[in-house]
Amino acid sequence: MEDAIVRNKKFIDIAEKLKPRLKKSKVYGKNLVEVVNDKNFIHGWKVNKIGDIKDLDKKVCGKGDSFIVDFSDHEVGYLSMKIRTVGSPQDAPLRMKVILGEMPCEMKEPFSNYKGWISSSWLQEEIITIDVISEVITLPRRYSFRYLKIEVLDTSAKYKVIFDEIYCTTVTSGDRTLIKGLPENVNNDLKKMDNVSIKTLEDCMQDVFEDGPKRDRRLWLGDLRLQAISNYKTFKNYDLVKRCLYLFAGVQDNNGQVPACLFIEPKIRADDSYFWDYSLFFIDVLYDYYKETKDKNIVRDLWSTAYRQIEIVMENLGDDNILKENGDFYVFVDWNQELERQASAQAILIYCAKKALQIAEEFNYEQRNFLRLKIKELTSAALNKFWDEKEKLFIGGEKRQISWATQIWMVIAGVISKKDSKRLMKRLFERKPTIKLVTPYAYHHLIEALILSGNKEFAIDQMKAYWGKMIEAGADTFWELYDPQDEKYSPYGSNLINSYCHAWSCTPTYFIREYLI
Amino acid sequence: MEDAIVRNKKFIDIAEKLKPRLKKSKVYGKNLVEVVNDKNFIHGWKVNKIGDIKDLDKKVCGKGDSFIVDFSDHEVGYLSMKIRTVGSPQDAPLRMKVILGEMPCEMKEPFSNYKGWISSSWLQEEIITIDVISEVITLPRRYSFRYLKIEVLDTSAKYKVIFDEIYCTTVTSGDRTLIKGLPENVNNDLKKMDNVSIKTLEDCMQDVFEDGPKRDRRLWLGDLRLQAISNYKTFKNYDLVKRCLYLFAGVQDNNGQVPACLFIEPKIRADDSYFWDYSLFFIDVLYDYYKETKDKNIVRDLWSTAYRQIEIVMENLGDDNILKENGDFYVFVDWNQELERQASAQAILIYCAKKALQIAEEFNYEQRNFLRLKIKELTSAALNKFWDEKEKLFIGGEKRQISWATQIWMVIAGVISKKDSKRLMKRLFERKPTIKLVTPYAYHHLIEALILSGNKEFAIDQMKAYWGKMIEAGADTFWELYDPQDEKYSPYGSNLINSYCHAWSCTPTYFIREYLI
Repeated sequence: MEDAIVRNKKFIDIAEKLKPRLKKSKVYGKNLVEVVNDKNFIHGWKVNKIGDIKDLDKKVCGKGDSFIVDFSDHEVGYLSMKIRTVGSPQDAPLRMKVILGEMPCEMKEPFSNYKGWISSSWLQEEIITIDVISEVITLPRRYSFRYLKIEVLDTSAKYKVIFDEIYCTTVTSGDRTLIKGLPENVNNDLKKMDNVSIKTLEDCMQDVFEDGPKRDRRLWLGDLRLQAISNYKTFKNYDLVKRCLYLFAGVQDNNGQVPACLFIEPKIRADDSYFWDYSLFFIDVLYDYYKETKDKNIVRDLWSTAYRQIEIVMENLGDDNILKENGDFYVFVDWNQELERQASAQAILIYCAKKALQIAEEFNYEQRNFLRLKIKELTSAALNKFWDEKEKLFIGGEKRQISWATQIWMVIAGVISKKDSKRLMKRLFERKPTIKLVTPYAYHHLIEALILSGNKEFAIDQMKAYWGKMIEAGADTFWELYDPQDEKYSPYGSNLINSYCHAWSCTPTYFIREYLI
Repeated sequence: MEDAIVRNKKFIDIAEKLKPRLKKSKVYGKNLVEVVNDKNFIHGWKVNKIGDIKDLDKKVCGKGDSFIVDFSDHEVGYLSMKIRTVGSPQDAPLRMKVILGEMPCEMKEPFSNYKGWISSSWLQEEIITIDVISEVITLPRRYSFRYLKIEVLDTSAKYKVIFDEIYCTTVTSGDRTLIKGLPENVNNDLKKMDNVSIKTLEDCMQDVFEDGPKRDRRLWLGDLRLQAISNYKTFKNYDLVKRCLYLFAGVQDNNGQVPACLFIEPKIRADDSYFWDYSLFFIDVLYDYYKETKDKNIVRDLWSTAYRQIEIVMENLGDDNILKENGDFYVFVDWNQELERQASAQAILIYCAKKALQIAEEFNYEQRNFLRLKIKELTSAALNKFWDEKEKLFIGGEKRQISWATQIWMVIAGVISKKDSKRLMKRLFERKPTIKLVTPYAYHHLIEALILSGNKEFAIDQMKAYWGKMIEAGADTFWELYDPQDEKYSPYGSNLINSYCHAWSCTPTYFIREYLI
């Protein structure tokens, strides 16, 4: 609740001063296309070019006419159309339906069929009525799309219209000119992955790091953490990370917890979602930012906020030093609804406590002794509680569940040695637990666990098998959700509402540039 | 065609300098209502109050919720809504359907059922998507309405909305403070008619005299003529009439004819509709304006344009001095599709030639002798051709049709004496031809003919029987179309698309103030 938020004016003011000026570019539609049924293509839809965009100004459109424009790449920005009338003067408004989609499915699967549980208002569809056609019309909302469908609902018996130009004024706070090219000898698959990662990140870099420019369009701490490390390797927009850190710190609740997510407009506001892992990741983002910039002031400003997240999560420790389970979504980890999250939560606490310790040691903060001790206690408690000597796996939760996520997070947290981690990861791939990873966010941690445990080559194979397969399936930007076994997978009830440019999926560029070249 | 238009920069510049500054007022919604089936009410819809607007801020609206607001009077302007969220912060756009209607039918008869031949884009319906709810939202288009229906299509699972305020910022170029009240002793029915007339005129007075603020929203010469004379008795906005005259004169075709109608935005443009009667009425509007203002300059500027209309129409005279028929809509007269218009056209030419003669005599223009002669020739030709001595009626067209319109226009044109006209009008009401009048525009000429022929009391009865019946049926402003025998009558295919505030229906105030008090 907003009442419970303590707004820190100093922090919010610092964040506001760091508000980026967005870069704009004019991008024109490229091709006229049709979208047809074909089960060999993603979601069962194939895109065929049927004309060049240059042909559009020969197409006279009246009631019932429609066409689809392919921009040939993912775009985030404002849509403009240069329209002129044909025939008599415009004696009635022009009314048209405008549908924008990141994916071909959005052009063909009727939005009216959408029955998912998150808001249908995310579906990018407008009914536009233009009283006076006068050169260029720019729609006021920002869209995220590659495909654009226009259906003329009505002109009048006396006039029709021609669309002379259709373009998008793209917006981003990422500056591509700052990105170094990969060395020549890097393999093409990795180059493609790097490219698509960068495009994904670019399109999510706006006033803040958004999670998805089509849907949610918010600053989530979990996404920020992955965007920040990818950004350091590419756009190097340090101020944007700094801004986001101060924003989160600026709207803690009255217990000092930072929310999982922020709304930026009409004013900075904390969402009422709180996840232990996301709150703890505040420390990790701060740690990484400091490592990159050596900016001591931000650590001095935000240390107490960062440390407070550990204290708050630790209030949920039992006498056995194990975090108690706490409802459904007290900790995120992944979108898999069946996942038992307790063991992952414990590992994430250890992981973040270690990051906090590194800061505390560098700055000689008094909490360093406590942290050092607590990390040991939490680690041995984790081993006691979750390690199964017979299975040689971590087993978590009430149902004694074996999941991918738990093993991965125990490795990332360094609960076991690098050597043991390598064996565990091998065993994990032999065992292939049914409680699988469903998001690129979770796959990021799989890759990280593989690299940390010395499986770099295998990590590359896994990246190719996951992000590479998205590219094969036609991704211009990486998707929020991808299950190679179920390409229509959505936790929301429909592939229509999934975000197909999603921040937490942008990390291949990080792995490639940090570890692989 | 635009190519054929000769733009007169001097005239257009004069018109542009006379562009009015619109007066604005803030009008709040009054009641929450339901609209229910009831065959005793207009179009079969009854409006029941179900709550005060004050109750609206208690109504929490989520997906699928809707309500209807009654503004209790006709309004023309911009719609604003003060919306706030309830529950969690707004985590998805608000999407809603907004339907605005002048009449209850527009709230209940689905617009998707509309299959008429004029553009469905006139139906006032919007799908609005609001990414960021932030106090007051003002829709960009101008509407004409009394009723407003809002259907919330989606919020999200986490928030709903409340509409704290709904108001219309009305616009008009009419200044009510300039209108004199009617004397106390004027009968209540006439007072009501006067009021509704003034409201109709007010709502059509915008940048120009529009024909209907909901549909067409254009400057028609036929409407202008009636608006101007009503305006002289009420708002006295002489500059607005002057502006409209210069606009028409500014876009003559290359033959010198003024169009029936003008588009104002994005720039002044002539419609490609030309009616003989409308072109001729340019003279009548100029004559009335001069009579009111004694502004000799405008006559000097526009006389040649005015006189040119007579010349152009007279090019269609046969050797018998009778206007030849010329297709379907070469002359308007009324919306009745069965009407044979030849005799009316002849009468209108005579009527306008007489107005031209009055100007020519006052200004000593050389055309006065020719006009004097021609009026005699046209008149005797009309009597020869159309007067039927047996029927004692004017009979017109190929089908030798007896219509209301023909008798009326012969009377107005003074083709027969006042005494004969009185007898003719009596005979007309006895005969009641089946080719009836279907618009208030045509009824205006009936009333005028009755008054001119000395039937003032009967004219009042007829006004009450027509405009009075519209008021009984619930008119806040007078309608474009009204057939007491067929209340759903529309020449366009649906009562939904009719305009219910229409300039050419505003003349009761003229009759009342000119002749009846």
